[in-house]
Amino acid sequence: MIGVVGRSEQHQSELEALLAAPGVDEIIRITHPFKLASRNFRPEGSIVELGKGVSIGGAEVIVAAGPCAVESAEQIGEIAGRVARAGAKLLRGGAFKPRSSPYSFQGLGEQGLKLLREAADKNGLLVVSEVMDPSQIEMMLPYVDVMQVGARNMQNYHLLRALGESSKPVLLKRGMSATIEELLLSAEYIMSGGNYNVMLCERGIRTFDTYMRNTMDIAAIPVIKHLSHLPVVADPSHGTGRRDKVPPMARAAVAAGADGLLIEVHQDPERALSDGAQSMYPEHFAQLMDEMRVIAPAVGRRIARP
Amino acid sequence: MIGVVGRSEQHQSELEALLAAPGVDEIIRITHPFKLASRNFRPEGSIVELGKGVSIGGAEVIVAAGPCAVESAEQIGEIAGRVARAGAKLLRGGAFKPRSSPYSFQGLGEQGLKLLREAADKNGLLVVSEVMDPSQIEMMLPYVDVMQVGARNMQNYHLLRALGESSKPVLLKRGMSATIEELLLSAEYIMSGGNYNVMLCERGIRTFDTYMRNTMDIAAIPVIKHLSHLPVVADPSHGTGRRDKVPPMARAAVAAGADGLLIEVHQDPERALSDGAQSMYPEHFAQLMDEMRVIAPAVGRRIARP
Amino acid sequence: MIGVVGRSEQHQSELEALLAAPGVDEIIRITHPFKLASRNFRPEGSIVELGKGVSIGGAEVIVAAGPCAVESAEQIGEIAGRVARAGAKLLRGGAFKPRSSPYSFQGLGEQGLKLLREAADKNGLLVVSEVMDPSQIEMMLPYVDVMQVGARNMQNYHLLRALGESSKPVLLKRGMSATIEELLLSAEYIMSGGNYNVMLCERGIRTFDTYMRNTMDIAAIPVIKHLSHLPVVADPSHGTGRRDKVPPMARAAVAAGADGLLIEVHQDPERALSDGAQSMYPEHFAQLMDEMRVIAPAVGRRIARP
Amino acid sequence: MIGVVGRSEQHQSELEALLAAPGVDEIIRITHPFKLASRNFRPEGSIVELGKGVSIGGAEVIVAAGPCAVESAEQIGEIAGRVARAGAKLLRGGAFKPRSSPYSFQGLGEQGLKLLREAADKNGLLVVSEVMDPSQIEMMLPYVDVMQVGARNMQNYHLLRALGESSKPVLLKRGMSATIEELLLSAEYIMSGGNYNVMLCERGIRTFDTYMRNTMDIAAIPVIKHLSHLPVVADPSHGTGRRDKVPPMARAAVAAGADGLLIEVHQDPERALSDGAQSMYPEHFAQLMDEMRVIAPAVGRRIARP
Repeated sequence: MIGVVGRSEQHQSELEALLAAPGVDEIIRITHPFKLASRNFRPEGSIVELGKGVSIGGAEVIVAAGPCAVESAEQIGEIAGRVARAGAKLLRGGAFKPRSSPYSFQGLGEQGLKLLREAADKNGLLVVSEVMDPSQIEMMLPYVDVMQVGARNMQNYHLLRALGESSKPVLLKRGMSATIEELLLSAEYIMSGGNYNVMLCERGIRTFDTYMRNTMDIAAIPVIKHLSHLPVVADPSHGTGRRDKVPPMARAAVAAGADGLLIEVHQDPERALSDGAQSMYPEHFAQLMDEMRVIAPAVGRRIARP
Repeated sequence: MIGVVGRSEQHQSELEALLAAPGVDEIIRITHPFKLASRNFRPEGSIVELGKGVSIGGAEVIVAAGPCAVESAEQIGEIAGRVARAGAKLLRGGAFKPRSSPYSFQGLGEQGLKLLREAADKNGLLVVSEVMDPSQIEMMLPYVDVMQVGARNMQNYHLLRALGESSKPVLLKRGMSATIEELLLSAEYIMSGGNYNVMLCERGIRTFDTYMRNTMDIAAIPVIKHLSHLPVVADPSHGTGRRDKVPPMARAAVAAGADGLLIEVHQDPERALSDGAQSMYPEHFAQLMDEMRVIAPAVGRRIARP
Repeated sequence: MIGVVGRSEQHQSELEALLAAPGVDEIIRITHPFKLASRNFRPEGSIVELGKGVSIGGAEVIVAAGPCAVESAEQIGEIAGRVARAGAKLLRGGAFKPRSSPYSFQGLGEQGLKLLREAADKNGLLVVSEVMDPSQIEMMLPYVDVMQVGARNMQNYHLLRALGESSKPVLLKRGMSATIEELLLSAEYIMSGGNYNVMLCERGIRTFDTYMRNTMDIAAIPVIKHLSHLPVVADPSHGTGRRDKVPPMARAAVAAGADGLLIEVHQDPERALSDGAQSMYPEHFAQLMDEMRVIAPAVGRRIARP
Repeated sequence: MIGVVGRSEQHQSELEALLAAPGVDEIIRITHPFKLASRNFRPEGSIVELGKGVSIGGAEVIVAAGPCAVESAEQIGEIAGRVARAGAKLLRGGAFKPRSSPYSFQGLGEQGLKLLREAADKNGLLVVSEVMDPSQIEMMLPYVDVMQVGARNMQNYHLLRALGESSKPVLLKRGMSATIEELLLSAEYIMSGGNYNVMLCERGIRTFDTYMRNTMDIAAIPVIKHLSHLPVVADPSHGTGRRDKVPPMARAAVAAGADGLLIEVHQDPERALSDGAQSMYPEHFAQLMDEMRVIAPAVGRRIARP
């Protein structure tokens, strides 16, 4: 048995050569291969400024809410008003939708972003929306306050590097079967370009269980907080795929120490163009906000009233 | 496409024959194969009486705490006092330990049960302990108030049937890779013998993630409550395997609607004969109880003060 | 970083205490916790004698075939003749069936074992059948040549210990989500009692994939052969759950180095009382035997002609 | 219970609305959401022409071999000669490497492609290499005969759509935790643009097992052949991550019906800049080719001699 010191990320190829050498059975790595994303880099934790005086990572738990996809000015306008009055600080909504099938609704594109921005501005909200390709970044910058990277793109390294070149905050979702280390390495791709405004998002992993769309890994929240200084957001809507399971998982995320939540809300989920089954009614969302306000003090946090 | 009505559990072999017939591509089952464990059987939910006026499934969230294994009269006596003063209602402790390796400590046997009973009685606590084989049941009955079936034995049908013949309450743990339906079918084995005093326990499932020992499936709590009338208990100690992750997951379980908790506590975890790494210090356990008391009202529950 | 030498299986509790100590982040085990099952124990590999001159682990790949469950003298008699004429050396068939649902067919019991023995003897075959509880062993001994432990009982330590006390060969199936190390530790339970006649069986693991009943881990075959001296058997019937996928997976198992195969065959699968969907027709089984006879020489093995 | 007919891919949003409606518990889809990739579309199976008279999907099993990454003219030149003499028809090698860590070797870029093309041409081989972003396609076209899409990009829809606009053959790798249906839907993205020259590749999935890098899902080979007309390739190098496990899994893939193989070979794996641990020595690769030549006739196939 031989112990080796040094940073493994700078000696990856030597390590691989060593593993390939005769007589070597296994190489066991002791240190983590990420550094900018590591808790050691900023032991006190990061607070990311999102704009309009809103920041995430501090005492306040921040909630982003809205429909899966922007569908019309009326739809996004009404939802924005409802979630703002319930205490949300960001409006979420997709203009570009990654869909498993090429035949599904793919989003309104730039027109959707315009509607999202208008609805948010009217209600004092910030905007978070998904970017799917480097070619969309430039166009999206004026419309959004937070660039979301979806689970399917967590290891799209061209996209991550491109996002590292701006200073726009990024919400990076964990891939469906990504380890926490892989998630932190993807954050490292963005941060190594100079953009430290990164938030990480647990949104459910793929397991043998078939009752829910995904298995929400609530323990990932305290684990990421332990390993990294970056703020952690939970997405109980994708994490469960079922509207009635969103409130218990949102409450659980706050109880486990999440810095933020991403929740799908739709005023008419039966007619939503995507993900209607997991979207909450606005009145249930308001009730959930109240339940979370009871829980937050148990972990030394609070959720603002509108 | 052909639709068939009737109870699939009584026609299992016909269904299998049908699936094997030429031209049949797939059989999709619409109804659940369990009935006694189903929520339909008792829509209002079950309250299981455990003894000494303690019951589970009602407004109060019940906590069982104690060491992984009973080691000595001094050890179990001190822990019993500490957890009782913090508000626990049951004392947990193993006398028979299922260990992956035949060379690990296997428990004190009947002597351990005696020590457990004495320590519990002195502190007004009930006793929960694991049974591993039908041959142990008779001997264990006088010592324990709740028989625990471990994850490895969830599909040990001889054991389940034997437990169905008494009326002693059973805490049935979910197998490491069992679906929720399989867990409910195992409960059905016990209940079909006439023993309806069954509690189900989520204790983490096996996934690709390697940071924690298991991935605790917090969503299983509301899912089981939806499908079944039986009380649901969460075990964050086995669910995480790491002491510092027990409090966030215990809080999350209460926020998600658990009826009870099973938590490992040891006054000297560094010297514990098993599972020391996941055992909490008594003072941290007391603090966790206070945090959970803040959370319970958010879901219309409470946790009694000692 | 501190390195520690010694056998971890004898110091489990000290290791756990160490992990629980302040300042200890992780303990990384370098050696395997099994020894009797380890390849080091018998570097040349084990050949297990099954009776009537049949042994497993040598140049010949041994095939066990037969129905999931014994149903009647006619059924088992006909199948025994068909599989013997195709080249099988053992007759498989369940007399005690572990079923997820208490309402499914549970097997014919001792009567089934008698029928199995008679059918095997008439056709020069050996018998392999599943044991579910220590209380069945004594009764089963005269009827069977190989005791099978099912996946659900891989960690039923009372059963494993009891099987360690006889010298009857044991076919130990891998649990649905057991690691290879856990499988070898379960073999260690049997071997530490003195019974070294153990064969290990890969029968599919539980993964996120839902198209097949299980994901057959073909790579486990060479991995187990590398780590252990014990013979390895593959069960493509349970490994896939679909009759038309049994031949490709049986061929793949031989190509990957399996010492034996366990295959379900039924003369009338549409009317089988259990697992009809995965049972092969006798004529397709004979064809598969011929295909495997072409493959075996690629790995220095052979499959006998009847 | 209500049955609905029609193509679900054209009515996705109506289906989601239905699922969200009160009283609807579950929607069970009976038909597959892919059509161009479906076996029904071309029941006889597709044969994809790769160039220089080489095609895949017919009686001959096609082998692509070469290093993980192109490192130098000497390296790729020597390997090309060795694998051509052993019977490979394509030279594989990465010029753009998707690496989990931003600090690992990322490939030689266009210079690597030039070296790859020259080495292939000198040895009568075709070229397969990975594309990571739509912006690389135009530049790569002259250098490669087959565009490979890596597992991390299986759901990078911008990349898939861009590849659908040319007629260059595409080798689409299954994502680490993608279901077979998701793999076929990703193929559908390419095919719906008009490019039907698609091959699918099984390269191991992520499971709880930690001994191998991935669990190679050999059963996926016959399952994909059953559901789709597209040729299926197996990658035992990434499927196992360990050199000594590549031969058994390559043989298993042929025995299970694979149309092609993708194997990493390096003349000096101890000094490889990436993936040395899973690269075979050229002489072992030649021996493996001979073993596979024994197996292929068992499934009515052959592997050409050089």
